[in-house]
Parts: sequence; structure tokens; C-alpha cells
Amino acid sequence: MMEYAAIHHQPFSSDAYSYDGRTVHIKIRTKKGDADQVRLIWGDPYEHVPAEESSRWAAHDMHMKKMAETETHDYWFAEVAPPFRRLQYGFVLTGTDHEDIFFGSSGVCPYNEKALETIHDYFKFPFVHKADTFQAPEWVKSTVWYQIFPERFANGREDLSPENALPWGSKDPEVHDFFGGDLQGIIDKLDYLQDLGVGGIYLTPIFSAPSNHKYDTLDYYTIDPHFGDPELFRTLVSSLHQRGMRIMLDAVFNHIGSASPQWQDVLKHGEQSRYKDWFHIHSFPVKENNYDTFAFTRDMPKLNTSNPEVQTYLLEIALYWIREFDIDGWRLDVANEVDHAFWKKFRQVVSAEKPDVYILGEIWHRADPWLKGDEFHAVMNYPFTEPMIEYFADRTISASQMVHRLNAHLMNGMQQVNEAMFNLLDSHDTQRLLTRCRQDEQKARSLLAFMFAQTGSPCIYYGTEIGLDGGNDPLCRKCMIWEEEKQNQELLKFMKRLIALRKQEHDVLTHGSLEWNLLDDQSDLISFSRAVSEKKLIYFFNQGSEVRHVSLRDLDIESDMKIYDAWTEKALHLADAIAVHPGEFVVVGAS
Amino acid sequence: MMEYAAIHHQPFSSDAYSYDGRTVHIKIRTKKGDADQVRLIWGDPYEHVPAEESSRWAAHDMHMKKMAETETHDYWFAEVAPPFRRLQYGFVLTGTDHEDIFFGSSGVCPYNEKALETIHDYFKFPFVHKADTFQAPEWVKSTVWYQIFPERFANGREDLSPENALPWGSKDPEVHDFFGGDLQGIIDKLDYLQDLGVGGIYLTPIFSAPSNHKYDTLDYYTIDPHFGDPELFRTLVSSLHQRGMRIMLDAVFNHIGSASPQWQDVLKHGEQSRYKDWFHIHSFPVKENNYDTFAFTRDMPKLNTSNPEVQTYLLEIALYWIREFDIDGWRLDVANEVDHAFWKKFRQVVSAEKPDVYILGEIWHRADPWLKGDEFHAVMNYPFTEPMIEYFADRTISASQMVHRLNAHLMNGMQQVNEAMFNLLDSHDTQRLLTRCRQDEQKARSLLAFMFAQTGSPCIYYGTEIGLDGGNDPLCRKCMIWEEEKQNQELLKFMKRLIALRKQEHDVLTHGSLEWNLLDDQSDLISFSRAVSEKKLIYFFNQGSEVRHVSLRDLDIESDMKIYDAWTEKALHLADAIAVHPGEFVVVGAS
Repeated sequence: MMEYAAIHHQPFSSDAYSYDGRTVHIKIRTKKGDADQVRLIWGDPYEHVPAEESSRWAAHDMHMKKMAETETHDYWFAEVAPPFRRLQYGFVLTGTDHEDIFFGSSGVCPYNEKALETIHDYFKFPFVHKADTFQAPEWVKSTVWYQIFPERFANGREDLSPENALPWGSKDPEVHDFFGGDLQGIIDKLDYLQDLGVGGIYLTPIFSAPSNHKYDTLDYYTIDPHFGDPELFRTLVSSLHQRGMRIMLDAVFNHIGSASPQWQDVLKHGEQSRYKDWFHIHSFPVKENNYDTFAFTRDMPKLNTSNPEVQTYLLEIALYWIREFDIDGWRLDVANEVDHAFWKKFRQVVSAEKPDVYILGEIWHRADPWLKGDEFHAVMNYPFTEPMIEYFADRTISASQMVHRLNAHLMNGMQQVNEAMFNLLDSHDTQRLLTRCRQDEQKARSLLAFMFAQTGSPCIYYGTEIGLDGGNDPLCRKCMIWEEEKQNQELLKFMKRLIALRKQEHDVLTHGSLEWNLLDDQSDLISFSRAVSEKKLIYFFNQGSEVRHVSLRDLDIESDMKIYDAWTEKALHLADAIAVHPGEFVVVGAS
Repeated sequence: MMEYAAIHHQPFSSDAYSYDGRTVHIKIRTKKGDADQVRLIWGDPYEHVPAEESSRWAAHDMHMKKMAETETHDYWFAEVAPPFRRLQYGFVLTGTDHEDIFFGSSGVCPYNEKALETIHDYFKFPFVHKADTFQAPEWVKSTVWYQIFPERFANGREDLSPENALPWGSKDPEVHDFFGGDLQGIIDKLDYLQDLGVGGIYLTPIFSAPSNHKYDTLDYYTIDPHFGDPELFRTLVSSLHQRGMRIMLDAVFNHIGSASPQWQDVLKHGEQSRYKDWFHIHSFPVKENNYDTFAFTRDMPKLNTSNPEVQTYLLEIALYWIREFDIDGWRLDVANEVDHAFWKKFRQVVSAEKPDVYILGEIWHRADPWLKGDEFHAVMNYPFTEPMIEYFADRTISASQMVHRLNAHLMNGMQQVNEAMFNLLDSHDTQRLLTRCRQDEQKARSLLAFMFAQTGSPCIYYGTEIGLDGGNDPLCRKCMIWEEEKQNQELLKFMKRLIALRKQEHDVLTHGSLEWNLLDDQSDLISFSRAVSEKKLIYFFNQGSEVRHVSLRDLDIESDMKIYDAWTEKALHLADAIAVHPGEFVVVGAS
């Protein structure tokens, strides 16, 4: 008997959503191994079988595809395009004992053909509206991002550097060090970035602020004087756009810096301050701990984003940098601690100003409510990062555990959300990849190749491509190394190839389906395919200690397809066997 | 071993929500009978144990209460008020075999005290915002509603009646009949309604329209001339308000009538019509079936609520009836087929105009996304109706099946959503209660008493209180009977007592907890308690064939409590035994 208590379908969620304003995606999960097949019964709620006296409902019946499995569940998937854009549906599940049950909005009941006439507890998707459909800007899906921490990327204007700036790269950074990186430095390195092949850069905050990281904003309208000025920023944006590249800035709207005029006014005037309702102050006078802050950081007082004045203030800022400088995206700091009501307004005004702008929230956990279509286009996809790191770098979970967690995360998301996700392996808030890999560069390469093979827009943290290492903050914020002889040129070459491959195989890697072919925990070999229409990429990652030989005949490749090694672009033949060496990976293409 | 695949907690849903902008409610479900106890591990994501060198997280550990059970699951509940309004949490579940497991955002893992230091996959409730908290107008929870179908309630102005109006109550209504009911009729009967005790009336549409039901709106700004005029409506509203009663109108915004000037313009001018984008027209010229409609009803063309012009038009209408006539609520017809984006705008402008307005959607199914706090305050609670009817009236399910389905539905909702729900047993869209009960008045009484004992705002469909019967539309729209000798006076007396009891015991019945004490499928006896602080109501419904005696000593009543029969208001004593006769119910009060 099937485990009824494990059957789950959440209507109006990523289990039932409009993919494109016309097609509805439906998912259901069952206990792993429990169901032999699952069918979707669907139709229009108002349509009855014509020419029949009975009021029998005109239902369609289709097989669902087993799409993914996790440690505990199987996921089944189907897509339908209801002709009148209205849908009701239920599920018929067949257990391994051939028992058929119906699962609808009132739970489980026995099923037979006759039941169709009497069962009324269908799930509903009342109307498929374009207006309620999550849509991300098309360009995002195929963009490879590059994250820059401006104070540490390149110093292009020594004259702007803080007085106490240390010589570039002269030591490992401590929390309050300055090294003098600036916008001119980024402009100077655009050839490097273009040559690397990235399509967009994401800058951590550049507005005036006392710290080196600038998350303690002093004035949202001013480029930090140590970074540059409006003209320099305008030059940066237009130079990027000329190269077909995009730029995303960091909006720190959860809190403001304590040096800001607003907070200083509160400190000075207390309850008489015109800014007293801009914050969450519990009592006056303001003391050490009677106001809300980011974490317990006293110099980052939390903004009251329910105050219409604060809303107008922040929304005007968001619009200003788009209108005046034509930026392409906003990354929203600590986005999960700001109210949804504010972000919905943010989305409305920002998308109205520039419809293809990208809105990325910093959220480290599952983020369903922010990704319904009326707030963000993506979040920093740390829950996707973690299983990859734990498998490849930490070796704390098995291949199948990693895949099951990746699957669970993918199943939590709508397909178009997964396609626009901001995928990353390291950032200014984590250890650097190479350090997390305990300096094992081969592991780092496998991880990068693995992430680049997944759905979602990958991001490289500055320096990772040339072997920069470092532990948690502040060590992950070392100065970029520009002396070529000190850069890991082999790794850089690898990264260029990886980015180029992502762009060459754009269709498969951004929209393609994902199928896990082989998960061998014993020998640590993972294989999966990405496929779209007539094209397929088959990946093999060998994290075991023995070389593995794969016969191409054993792969699911049509005999009339062109087969090639997608990395080297060399032709392969169906008669070939390929070797996957320990620690390495192979990508077979077929088209 | 516990059934891991059945453990379910959905973050950011009715499983984890802000109840009041400060307190967070947390629910989790397990396979029925699987877990002996469940604990909630919770704390601030940024807070570490002070005075400890380790970075050990400062976690609290509390027992969750088994709150409800369904056919397949147990539900566990806890509420916490995180001091800094930030929350992370996980669950420790103890199986009947005393095995402890941790359930967090990555699923299940083994648990022991030490695990607290290493487990990082907590669920998050990043910040408790008032702005994101569902709140319904306070008055709604304690309002008893009365639904009026104006064409059939009372004819107060013969001169306004349609020419072809039939003599009042002269026959069972057919689809296109008119009988002449109007607004003056309602005004004339306000004493009756006040005497009955209802607190609010809900009128099906009153705007000009060709049909008797007026769901095919011709002009949203005009009171249908057969119903009255603006002055008459103004009198109705002010008379109601003087009596402390509220009024809710029906907004039919999913579609418009084909007689409307907008649709007529489209028919006349085709692609040149300035209204061509007000609808969903697939091609021109407009024919039988090349445009979207409500269901397949050709004379109700569906409005394009994504068109800003249509939005402005409809929103102005919503505001007009509030501004000009001070109505207290909008019931939204076919609300589930209109886009969320529109309803969010509707909520914003309507609530801004009149903050304590009630917004009620006609949705027959589970309605989570409309009840997040930024669209509706309630929906017509048909999924709650169904199990009650199927048990009491149809006798197709057992007592425990009814309760399990009621529980499942209650568990789907946030507490404050359930409190403001629009509960009903019949309406203009269903069979009448008495007919559904096959004329068994005692059953109808039990059903009414049962519904009035539940959380949510109950509604009486006009006439049900005096024994009006009728099958599905059009028979459920009979003329109200005003001759006292033809009214069921006993039933009317019963209804007055029921309404009075609901108002007397307002605190317990609107906010009180619900506990099922006894579910005896064999003898068909159901008992449950509603309780709040020092007050309790214990209900007994006997649907079996034998009288049941209940000793008050066996009930969970403190010895110092005052005990009384809540229906008759007679005092009871702990030594008493009460008799619950077949088909009857008893309510014991204790305070």
C-alpha cells in the first residue's frame, strides 16, 4: 500500500504554476519507490462531456513523468496548456501493488473509472494569467556574472586612495584595512573581464560610507570619494554597455550607516528629530541597545521601511541610479529582513522604469515568497551552493546525498525561477573556493564545471579565476593579483574555456532539462545530461580514485547524432570509449 | 521508525506566520501516530551563547502541542515571540520508539544535544513585520451575516417592479422570473433583521442589469431601477448604520454584462472600438466563441483586468460606493479567476479609503494565495461547509471523517484567517439547507448550531431562519415568506437564540481554541470544546439513535468554575449528568 501521509501537492505554489502565461506546470511528490505511475486528470472546470445526458466532466488523463528523486521522495511532473486557461485537476496514483488511488483537494480516496463522475474535490488553477506569471529578464539566464569588491579589485587612481591605504596586496586584509581599489581600476580592467568572457559585473556597495565594504551607507546619492565620482561611474557603465556587458549595484536598504545624516539627526535631536520614525527606536534618548539594527551591529541602524517617507526616499534612490546612470540590476542586501510590502513597491517602480532590470535578493535560505513574480527575479542561491561544496570540497556527503539535496532545492522552485537564479560558489561573505577546497585546485575546477553545467546564471567571485584564496571575511577580501606571473594562468585558461562553453551551449545549459544518469556512491562517479530538443550534453565527474571508462554506445545517444568532446571540441564516434580520470570531468556533446 | 517522507513543514506559509506582528505561529505535520512528542528549537539567527568561547548558537527548546489530527496526519503547534523579531527554528521529533531526529531545511538528520552546534539548516522567519501580517477588520469576527437576494427578499415599492413581475411567492421561481423585490423591501424589514440579531447584510448585486440575479452588470454606477435609486440606497445604508449593522455589496468584476455600453461598443465597432482591449477577444469580428467569458456564458464577457484602463474603471467603482454611500464590505464575484495583481491593487485602494472595510472573495476551493494579507480578508468558506453537510445532512461520511476534513481545512489557514472566514451552509448558489437535509428540520438545527460554534463569521441565507426550502438555482431563490403563520416560528425562535448565544459567548466563539473531546463513529456522538482563558463551552451533538448521558465530572472542568447550560442559561452542578437526545445537541458552559 502506498504511504498516503507522504503524498503532497501544494496548490498555488511551485507545485502548480504558470510557466509562461499559457502553460501550467504541475508537480506532485510521493514516498520514494511508492508509486509505479502517476496520472494527471485535468480539464476545464465548466466543461462537460458533450452529447451525453449525464453531467459527466470532460476530463483528460495523462501520464506524469518521474522528474527527480530525493532521499525521501519521488517527484512527478506534467505540463498542460488548458484551452480556456482554466484548469482543475487531480492525480491517480498507482502503487507497486497496482492499487489505484485518487488524490485531490480532500486527500486520498479509492479510484476507478466511474469515480470521475462523482469526485468533486479537484485542485483548481482557476485562470492562467500572464500578469501573475513569474518572468525574469531574458538576458539574465545566459549571463555569466563577475562579482567585484571594489576596494580590492584594482587601484586605478592612487590620488583617490584613503590616506591610510596600504600598498596593494602588501598583507592579508584585516577588518579595517584600506588598499585603495576604485572605479578607475575596474575601467582599466574591462579588457581583462571581456577577455575572460563574463557578461555582467556585480559591484558590492559603491556609495559613500566609512568602511572598506561600504555596507554602512552614509549617502546613497554619492559615489564614495575613494572610489570615484559620478563621471567616472558614468564612464564605467557606458564602457560596459559598449562591450555588451551589464552592471548590477548593491542596494543596502535594510539599514543605513550610523554616520548618515538621518541617524546623526536622531542622535542629536532625539524624539524631536524629523527622522525619528525612519528607524525602529524603542525609547528615547537613543542608547546602546534600544533600537533595531542589522544583526547586533550598532552602527547599522535598521530602517523602518513601513514609513512612507522612508519608502519614497529609498525608491527614489533605486530609480535615480537607473535613470541617471542606466544600471542593469539591483542586488538587495539583507533582503529577507525587509518587509514584502516594500519589495512589492520596489519591484513595481523599478520594473516600470526599466522593464528588463534584474532584481536580486540576498537571501541565504529557501525564498519562495520573494520569487512569486512580484518581488525579485532571483536570490543568491546559497542553498544550491551548499550541497555542491559539501560533496566536492568537504567530502561530508555522498554523491547521491548531494544530488538529492540539489533535486529537493530545484523541485522547490518554479522552472523559470531556477533558470534565472544567481548561482555561486563563493562571495565576499564566504570562504574562497580554493580555500574551501583546501587548495586542491582540481576540486575547485570540478566544482566550477559542475556549477556551470547547472540551470541558473553562474557568478565568479573576483580572483577565483586566477587562484586567489582566503578564509572567511576579512580574508576572502584580499587584493586582486594583477602580476601575470603570480596569477594561476592555467586556472585562468580553464575558466575562459568554461565560460566560453557555457556561451556556446547556451540553449542546453540555460533551458535544458536535467537528468541524472548515474550516481555511484561507491566509486564516486556522477553523470548527468542536460538536453533541449535535438541537443544534449552528458557530463561525467569522477571524484573517486580509479579511472572510469565509459562506452559511448551505453549512452542514450541517437545513432545519427554528431558526437563530440564538448570541452576540446574533438569529434567522437559511437564506437569510442572515453576515460574519466580520478578528479576530472568529461563533457560529451551530441547534436 | 518515523515515516520521514510524511514530515512536512512549509516555511513562509500558514505553517509559519506572524499572528499579530509580534507572535509567530509554527506548525508541523507528521504521519498520524508516528511521533510521541515534537519540540521546537528556536532563537535569533545572530545570537550566540554569551560567555562561551564556542560559537554555539543560543537556542531555546520548547514542546509543541498536538493541535489536530486528520485521516493521515498529526499537526503540532507552538507560538513564539522572538525578542528581536528575527527567528530561526527547527524541529526535534521523538518517535514512539524514542528515536530523536532533527527536521530542518535540508530534511531529516539524527539528533543529539551536540547536534545543536553543528546543524545549520534551520528554517528562517527573517523578520516579523506588521506590514506583512494578515489582519482582518476586528468587527468581522463577531458579525453574524445575513445574505439577501434582493429580487426575492421583499417588495417594498410595487411601482418599481418589472412589468412582468409575478405575484409575490405565487410559484416556484424559474430562471427568468421576476417577483419585484427591492431596496425599500429591505428597509421595511430592518426591524425584523435587528430582532433576528444579525450584524451585517450581504446583498447579491444591485447594480442595473437585465437578469433577476444582476450578475450580468449593465452599469456599475446605477442602482437597478427595479430595486431603487441612490437615495433609497443611502437610506438603507444609514438605517443599517444607525442600528449598528453593516452592509456588504457584490462586485462582479470578473466579467460584465453583454448589455453594457462597453461590450455593445465592441459589437458595433469591432477592432475600432475603444473598448476592444477591455476584454479577451481572440479575433475580429466578435462571434459566438472567439472571446473569453465567465464559464461558457456568452452574455458575460470576461474583463481584461490587466488593462490599466479597466483597472482604473473598476477601482473607481469600488471607491465610489464606499465614498458616496459608506458601504462596509465588498464581496467579489468569481474572484479566483481574476488576476492577483489586480486584487492587490484593489486591496490597496479600498483599504486606504476605508481601513476597516471587509473584502470577501467568492472562492470555493482552498484559497491560500488570496489570504496572505494583501488581497482578501476572507473567502466564502465552502470547503468548510462541505464536510459538515456530508456528515449531518447527506450521512455519506462518518463523524471522524468530517472532523478530519474540518481539521485539515483549519490547519491550512492562519488562525486570524480562520477567525474572519465567511462560513455558510447555503447560498444563492447551492441547495437550501432544509432541502439538503431532506426537510429534516432537526438536522438543519444541528448543522446551524454546529457551524455557529466554529471559528469564523457565520452567514444565514435569507429565509433559512423561517424554514424556506428549495433545490439548486433557481429553486434556492424563492420569495421570502412574510406571513407569520406560514413562517416556521419555532425555527425562527431557535435562530434568534443561536445568534444571541454567539453574541453572548463572543470571546470564546471568535477567538477560542478548539479541542475535539470525543468522536464516536459507532454511536455518532461528537463533543468538542471551545475555550479562551477562564471560559469554556463544551458542545455535544448526538446524531445517533440512542440517548447519551454525560457526567459533568468527566469533563475537563475546574471544580471552582460556574457551570451552566449555555442554551437555556440554567445553572448546572458538577454532580449532574446531562442527557443528549438523538438528533439533539447540548452546550455546557463553564466560567
